[in-house]
Amino acid sequence: MDKKYVYFFGKDKAEGNAKMKELLGGKGANLAEMARLGIPVPPGFTITTEVCTRYYESHGDYPSGLEAQVKESLIRVEDAMGAKFGDNENPLLLSVRSGARASMPGMMDTVLNIGLNDITLKGLIAQSKNERFAYDCYRRFVQMYGDVVLGLKPVEKDERDPFEIILEEKKEKNGVTFDYELSSDDLKELVIEFKTEIKKRLNIDFPEDPLEQLWGAIGSVFSSWNNPRAIAYRELNHIPEHWGTAINVQAMVFGNLGEDSGTGVAFTRDPATGENVFYGEYLLNAQGEDVVAGIRTPRPINNLQKGKSLLPSLEEEMPEIYNQLLDIRKTLEIHYRDLQDVEFTIQRGKLYMLQTRSGKRTGFAAIRIAVEMVEEKLIEKEEAIMRVEPEQLNQLLSPILDPEEKKKAIAQGRLLAKGLNAGPGGASGKVIFNASEAEELAQKGEEDIILVRIETSPEDIRGMNAAKGILTARGGMTSHAALVARQMGKVCVVGSEALEIDYSKQVMRVKGREIKKGDYISVDGTIGEVYLDKIKETPSETLQVLIDKTLEPKESDIYQIFTKIMSWSDEIRTLGIRTNADKSDQVSVALSFGAEGIGLCRTEHMFFEGDRIDSVREMILADDKAGREKALSKLMPMQKEDFISIFRLMDGMPVTIRTLDPPLHEFLPKSEKEIDRLAKKMGILREKLTTKIEGLHESNPMLGHRGCRLGIVYPEITEMQARAIFEASCQVAKEGIKVVPEVMIPLVGHVRELIMQKQVVDRVAKEVMESCGINIEYMVGTMIELPRAAITADEIAEVAEFFSFGTNDLTQMAFGLSRDDAGKFLPYYINKRIIEKDPFQELDQDGVGKLIEIAVQRGRNTKPTLKVGICGEHGGDPSSIEFFYRTGLDYVSCSPYRIPIARLAAAQSVLRSRNRGVGGPKKAQ
Amino acid sequence: MDKKYVYFFGKDKAEGNAKMKELLGGKGANLAEMARLGIPVPPGFTITTEVCTRYYESHGDYPSGLEAQVKESLIRVEDAMGAKFGDNENPLLLSVRSGARASMPGMMDTVLNIGLNDITLKGLIAQSKNERFAYDCYRRFVQMYGDVVLGLKPVEKDERDPFEIILEEKKEKNGVTFDYELSSDDLKELVIEFKTEIKKRLNIDFPEDPLEQLWGAIGSVFSSWNNPRAIAYRELNHIPEHWGTAINVQAMVFGNLGEDSGTGVAFTRDPATGENVFYGEYLLNAQGEDVVAGIRTPRPINNLQKGKSLLPSLEEEMPEIYNQLLDIRKTLEIHYRDLQDVEFTIQRGKLYMLQTRSGKRTGFAAIRIAVEMVEEKLIEKEEAIMRVEPEQLNQLLSPILDPEEKKKAIAQGRLLAKGLNAGPGGASGKVIFNASEAEELAQKGEEDIILVRIETSPEDIRGMNAAKGILTARGGMTSHAALVARQMGKVCVVGSEALEIDYSKQVMRVKGREIKKGDYISVDGTIGEVYLDKIKETPSETLQVLIDKTLEPKESDIYQIFTKIMSWSDEIRTLGIRTNADKSDQVSVALSFGAEGIGLCRTEHMFFEGDRIDSVREMILADDKAGREKALSKLMPMQKEDFISIFRLMDGMPVTIRTLDPPLHEFLPKSEKEIDRLAKKMGILREKLTTKIEGLHESNPMLGHRGCRLGIVYPEITEMQARAIFEASCQVAKEGIKVVPEVMIPLVGHVRELIMQKQVVDRVAKEVMESCGINIEYMVGTMIELPRAAITADEIAEVAEFFSFGTNDLTQMAFGLSRDDAGKFLPYYINKRIIEKDPFQELDQDGVGKLIEIAVQRGRNTKPTLKVGICGEHGGDPSSIEFFYRTGLDYVSCSPYRIPIARLAAAQSVLRSRNRGVGGPKKAQ
Repeated sequence: MDKKYVYFFGKDKAEGNAKMKELLGGKGANLAEMARLGIPVPPGFTITTEVCTRYYESHGDYPSGLEAQVKESLIRVEDAMGAKFGDNENPLLLSVRSGARASMPGMMDTVLNIGLNDITLKGLIAQSKNERFAYDCYRRFVQMYGDVVLGLKPVEKDERDPFEIILEEKKEKNGVTFDYELSSDDLKELVIEFKTEIKKRLNIDFPEDPLEQLWGAIGSVFSSWNNPRAIAYRELNHIPEHWGTAINVQAMVFGNLGEDSGTGVAFTRDPATGENVFYGEYLLNAQGEDVVAGIRTPRPINNLQKGKSLLPSLEEEMPEIYNQLLDIRKTLEIHYRDLQDVEFTIQRGKLYMLQTRSGKRTGFAAIRIAVEMVEEKLIEKEEAIMRVEPEQLNQLLSPILDPEEKKKAIAQGRLLAKGLNAGPGGASGKVIFNASEAEELAQKGEEDIILVRIETSPEDIRGMNAAKGILTARGGMTSHAALVARQMGKVCVVGSEALEIDYSKQVMRVKGREIKKGDYISVDGTIGEVYLDKIKETPSETLQVLIDKTLEPKESDIYQIFTKIMSWSDEIRTLGIRTNADKSDQVSVALSFGAEGIGLCRTEHMFFEGDRIDSVREMILADDKAGREKALSKLMPMQKEDFISIFRLMDGMPVTIRTLDPPLHEFLPKSEKEIDRLAKKMGILREKLTTKIEGLHESNPMLGHRGCRLGIVYPEITEMQARAIFEASCQVAKEGIKVVPEVMIPLVGHVRELIMQKQVVDRVAKEVMESCGINIEYMVGTMIELPRAAITADEIAEVAEFFSFGTNDLTQMAFGLSRDDAGKFLPYYINKRIIEKDPFQELDQDGVGKLIEIAVQRGRNTKPTLKVGICGEHGGDPSSIEFFYRTGLDYVSCSPYRIPIARLAAAQSVLRSRNRGVGGPKKAQ
Repeated sequence: MDKKYVYFFGKDKAEGNAKMKELLGGKGANLAEMARLGIPVPPGFTITTEVCTRYYESHGDYPSGLEAQVKESLIRVEDAMGAKFGDNENPLLLSVRSGARASMPGMMDTVLNIGLNDITLKGLIAQSKNERFAYDCYRRFVQMYGDVVLGLKPVEKDERDPFEIILEEKKEKNGVTFDYELSSDDLKELVIEFKTEIKKRLNIDFPEDPLEQLWGAIGSVFSSWNNPRAIAYRELNHIPEHWGTAINVQAMVFGNLGEDSGTGVAFTRDPATGENVFYGEYLLNAQGEDVVAGIRTPRPINNLQKGKSLLPSLEEEMPEIYNQLLDIRKTLEIHYRDLQDVEFTIQRGKLYMLQTRSGKRTGFAAIRIAVEMVEEKLIEKEEAIMRVEPEQLNQLLSPILDPEEKKKAIAQGRLLAKGLNAGPGGASGKVIFNASEAEELAQKGEEDIILVRIETSPEDIRGMNAAKGILTARGGMTSHAALVARQMGKVCVVGSEALEIDYSKQVMRVKGREIKKGDYISVDGTIGEVYLDKIKETPSETLQVLIDKTLEPKESDIYQIFTKIMSWSDEIRTLGIRTNADKSDQVSVALSFGAEGIGLCRTEHMFFEGDRIDSVREMILADDKAGREKALSKLMPMQKEDFISIFRLMDGMPVTIRTLDPPLHEFLPKSEKEIDRLAKKMGILREKLTTKIEGLHESNPMLGHRGCRLGIVYPEITEMQARAIFEASCQVAKEGIKVVPEVMIPLVGHVRELIMQKQVVDRVAKEVMESCGINIEYMVGTMIELPRAAITADEIAEVAEFFSFGTNDLTQMAFGLSRDDAGKFLPYYINKRIIEKDPFQELDQDGVGKLIEIAVQRGRNTKPTLKVGICGEHGGDPSSIEFFYRTGLDYVSCSPYRIPIARLAAAQSVLRSRNRGVGGPKKAQ
């Protein structure tokens, strides 16, 4: 017997269910589930993703048995609808829609009104008693089919749809502006003209056979899985190509059969703020794409949401339908225990649900919904933790427009327009009207881009990703722009209708002002406002309260929600979270965010403060050890003061201090002028200075004289730093504050390097502690950032008291790839999918990760109690954090602002390994 | 009971033997062995190396029981000599000499004539019936003891020995030139003056107690194990510090008791040429140090060696002693089955052997002796192979002075002087008179240094190592200079007495000419000649015969000997030997040397030939793919021609061709002038060209856009190269010659890079082969030169048909160390022994080697038949070759001139693992 490829769903029953997303796609699985829940859905069937995979493997063939199964299910749909596909009296019309495992909104093709031809049209007219409607369906069908299935859809951006050209001509000829102003006869003519155009361009006759139409649409939707937009979307969202899409064939229902019909979309809670209120939009006498496309401004679903709008709400216009929707909302939320995003159509007063799926939401909303659902006892804490993407926490912490500056701007008349608050936060940047241009500018390093569009479309995705903020003139909260911005966590205002955008002149006009490409505007996505010129960005409220404990959280309770999710995470996680911080202000921020120690204090950052750089340069340029020691003795008290303030703040938590790391030439002046100044200051000849500087030049500084190689050739540097650390330790300890210094030697490749540097540190520690009469417990350890260090970790662990992975350098060395130079080919690599992700952002687990595993294993074999952490930038990346957890690290260290993310990600790592039934991290034998 | 620390040896018997070198040192073990063989040695005893180790561990203490054992052995020596230590009638005098496991000639201290004081002196006078001799002994003893044991020996180079000052004054006062012109009374006075000087300087009385003298000498010799010279020597010769030295205490015998006494050194064969003739030097009425120090020119040991010398030979002067020596020579060679280096003393007509040891020899000699001893059935082939240091083969192949130019130089009167041919080969270079200066210059990259010294001393070792040739005015074939040069394989002429060297003016004068520091001279170490100015260096005879098969070997049979050792090596070795060669002339040389394939053909080297570089630049600077393809199409036929000639030469042997590897900017002009020229030629603006060039700049080119990253971003480059390879293959195959191309993709870090490049190669191969109608078997493989590639070798082996380790880059990446920049600290590291050896010369087996092991294991797990080779420079380094053999590689590839070394080293690897009882290389499971 053939495999089952087709799953039917209809009134109150279905062959599939919500758990079958892999096979039926999200849409298909949820349609089946809704049918099972007794929620009204138009009957139909789902063709499985396996068929898609087979379709690609066999270059366009279908598995045997599929045709028969489709036929069989079609009969069940006909039965359920009491209509017949291709019938000339009561014809059943079908929609064919894609539906992948993960939602890819708008990326693939859809064909509606399948089954119409000159004969069935008559049946539709008879059934609908609305000739104009029937011809409109027919016209739309021929156009859609011609575009999507027959391939007349424009490929290039500047190309125009041939059908649109004919349509425009028709409207012009009739002196009308909108499609709906065309008469039944006009539409009738259009059908003929469209078909003639197809014949002319493709030399084929438009297929009149409904079954041929159906199979054409199915093939086309499968093909669209690999269209460029879909590929780009998958890349951006890390969706594997091999998943494939399912296809949903469903009976058509019409929201455009008059004023008793309509269509809408809704969220079971507010997807922007997360508030537990029903939230949605609808249009009467319209088809679904009219809402999403943002051409007509949709109406609010209820009075709560209506606000000052003059448009009527569904609650007012169709109270029964609205109540039925409210019931469905409740059913769905209790059943799915998550925010649902639904589509519905009202056909002559009867409600049909076309889709339900887990709703995209802002970071704000994700966290609020997760926390509140725990309080509503819909979900457990663990599930709440898994519901929040760690990166979404950024939204709570990302900047807003400075309230004081905003007030001033309003006073100056710089508030240009209002719109919908589709993506919270504030952003100031240059106006760019074109997505590709935004992308190019971003690649060149431009960070301040506000992408301004009339409306956005899937082609704009990369440009939206490149922008800091997104602003559209049209579209509602469920428009493409809003949807995507929500998902990307971008600051976004949509439907700011006062804006008059002129792409050809690359300007926008509003309130009598003209804003050109490149001019600065500021966008407030939290409340939906657009300002002229720059407005300073300042920390968000959550951030302010976190940092300044004296402040009380104002306006919203988002701070409490943030605190809850963090404390739940802390209950679960086992990884320690430290921070990379060099100065006391950074340390304070990190502590507010929950740092449990400093994992990386870069001493060289201290070298740049104030006049210190001059002493540093004096040290570097000294002719001999005596000269270096003289300069170092000036630096010592300054470093000591820095350590004192850090130790005081950390108050008993461990502080890992790395000895000098960067190549010395980084401290030297580059410009002629600076060199002159320095020569004068040092009282030496310019030429001598230049020669010295040139002598320090390196062909490959990344592979040069840096890291512990400095401290080995110039042990006096390490000695000075050790002295500063231990004198500071003793002094703070005398104040009664516990001090836990961990001295970290960078770029060790051979255990003997560590031995030599440790000797210096231990000797100085002993001297200082003896002279102070205090004993401080301290550790000396090393960074593991060279492949050789990872491979010989067993030897290094004989000496090291801790390891800290420097994953930035380890990635550079393992790949033979300099971060500074990778720009020439790494984007190409990621684009061509040679490398899945930028290995400097997300740890390369297959390669660099293996080195880390080897190092942990060998290190702990030598010293089972070895403390192991990571202080590269991957310490703040969720997927890398999970890897570190699995590999058995003790802590991760990240930049202060990444700490909340790391805390959440660490908790998720525990939960994920529980779910997989793995006991937890690997431990030493 | 206490451990045995003291081993007695005497007439025909001994407690030790030759196998106990670890415990008794080389000298002690061989003295014991000679005694057992019935060879006359002065009786004595050896204090073991364990005592030395204990001495250092306990900071100068001796183990309990040592004193008693020394006393006991001393009594046996007294019995054997019929004299008593400290006796006033017939006093026994003792020598105390170091003797480590490995010979460290002249590095440690020696004290002679121990046991003399004002009382025993009288006994010595009575016994020797020679008052002057006795006082000379006493004077020498006090001076030596004062220097060595009491510490008055000068430490700084420019410091003068206080005893020498007194001695000089004494000679001046008496109006004599030489020590031996001083009278008995003068010497008597000197003893008193020396003792007074000691009292004055050190405020101690000279020890009169013979036992106190003995223990003082023992302590001093142990201490000298760690004097700076000894440490430097150990570093250079990789002798571990922990071995320690043994001490030999022996009855004194005197070669300076008159004309019936004497002393000498000899080799059982000629250590310079290896000829099977007895070779040695002696002096009558002299002590051993007089021969070695080179102050008096020694006499030839036999008539054969005498040549045109006017000095009488030992064969003439003491024929009986000479015959006795000949017998001993035979006994020793049969017993030790190796060249022996012996010291002897004749005391009043009686022969004593003071030492025998394996003799240092030139590469020439090592190979000839090894081969001839096989023919004499003294040793097996396997042992002969193990007897030759692979690097010594270089001497057969290293340059000589061009014979034609030498003729001309003689005609021009430029032959300055003759001397002894202590180190074969020819060298032209700048005269440098100071060893440290030579060392400094070499560090700055100067390669052409001839170190010219009156005589050399152990302090000069580093400078000798830095020089290309060594020339001394004094000393014989066993002088320090000759010994060291022989060992280092340096070109060397010693005892060129016509040279008048003036250190203070930094000139030497000869034949009325003055040669200043920095002037060029040329040294012929094969026959012992010194020329003015440069003389071209040309290939050695062996090399010429090897390369030009039409030549017949002339003069010597060294070519046959070379061929024998090579063919024996080939019988034993299992590793394949390939070569790194890019051009047909290199390929020819490599084939002469026995290459079995090309392991690395760098295509980019071909890019620099003639005008090609212009097309390469055109390709690099092209604005688009079309431009690049146009330039590439010009390069294709040229590359193809190169491949054709290589394939023809290789005639069925595999040829591994690497696709383009270096960063593109390496091909671009650097100077303003060149840029101007290129801009003009290309017809573009200078500014545009400059911008392009700047655009290609990289911060870390080693980690930048190079290797397969080029071929991936510009597949047209790989395509062109593949086309050239396969078109050449087809054409040569049509000529009836077998072609075995192996295309090698460089710098692969991720398997997908290899997949993409392999697709290009396979496609082009298919196209070309189809259009030629020929099928060529070929492989596509990859270099493993990134740590990530090594770690993910299992994945890469899914695609790669072979691996070739690029150990240069692998070392750079594993250590995070650029070869270009390491100069700033790597010498320091090696000096401080942080890293034992330069990892770019000798593979770092502990780190980089582990990565290689991982890669081989993972690669062969995936593909058990995977062919694995290495083409980094370590492919020609003996210790690395042994590692590659053990790790199971199939072949090594090295530069043409290293092939003989690689063949020998590969055979030695097999023999060594047999000796260790290991079955051979690791193989895949």
